[in-house]
Amino acid sequence: MMKRIEHIGIAVRDLDSAERIFEDILGVPPFKREEVPSESVKVSFFQTGESKVELLESTSVSGPIAEHIEKRGEGLHHIAFFVDDLMEEIERLKLLGYRLISGPKEGADQKMIAFLHPADSSKVLVELCAER
Amino acid sequence: MMKRIEHIGIAVRDLDSAERIFEDILGVPPFKREEVPSESVKVSFFQTGESKVELLESTSVSGPIAEHIEKRGEGLHHIAFFVDDLMEEIERLKLLGYRLISGPKEGADQKMIAFLHPADSSKVLVELCAER
Repeated sequence: MMKRIEHIGIAVRDLDSAERIFEDILGVPPFKREEVPSESVKVSFFQTGESKVELLESTSVSGPIAEHIEKRGEGLHHIAFFVDDLMEEIERLKLLGYRLISGPKEGADQKMIAFLHPADSSKVLVELCAER
Repeated sequence: MMKRIEHIGIAVRDLDSAERIFEDILGVPPFKREEVPSESVKVSFFQTGESKVELLESTSVSGPIAEHIEKRGEGLHHIAFFVDDLMEEIERLKLLGYRLISGPKEGADQKMIAFLHPADSSKVLVELCAER
């Protein structure tokens, strides 16, 4: 059962300038910056209500965010839903025919994460995440 | 001041099949379907936590969603933030140099809405919305 939007991921070319933009828009500064070497990204998080906005800048020329920007430019990248039990949710969705494109694995912000295959979900990259 | 993510807008080719997909993923059915003639769309809303997922299918070959799908395919389309006072928020952001690309105007779900120019916000289409 999806409990809430945990965060929205936004692919950006330059984290510093994107941080300034979303600080303007949201009216609050980011509460955390983090590097996730396994995903070749550095990320900033903003809190808005019960959800977060996650800005992602690639730290390599070939990571998933670099590839996304190469193909589609900057912008909305994924939507993450918080679940209590990640493995249970993955099993539930697999039984309904949904495939994982990556995970389960450790993600940013002390989460365990998995991504559904966007071909199964109207081309939306859906992340499921739970506390580690 | 942005209070929360009001909704995430997703551009889809076929509302019926996208509804089935997001009902699978979210574990709840849509709570409302609505047509918005001014935007040439029909939309479905799902509740997840304090936010909504909005699926948008174009009702014309030339509306904004039809154009988006033509250029970029299906997928994440916009992020909407709820604000208490839409005009005050627009004025605040204009003073910071942000431009509107449309609105303020009546939107779906009994909201007054406005969109920031995505060129000013890392190519993210940001909607501001308030109760009518």
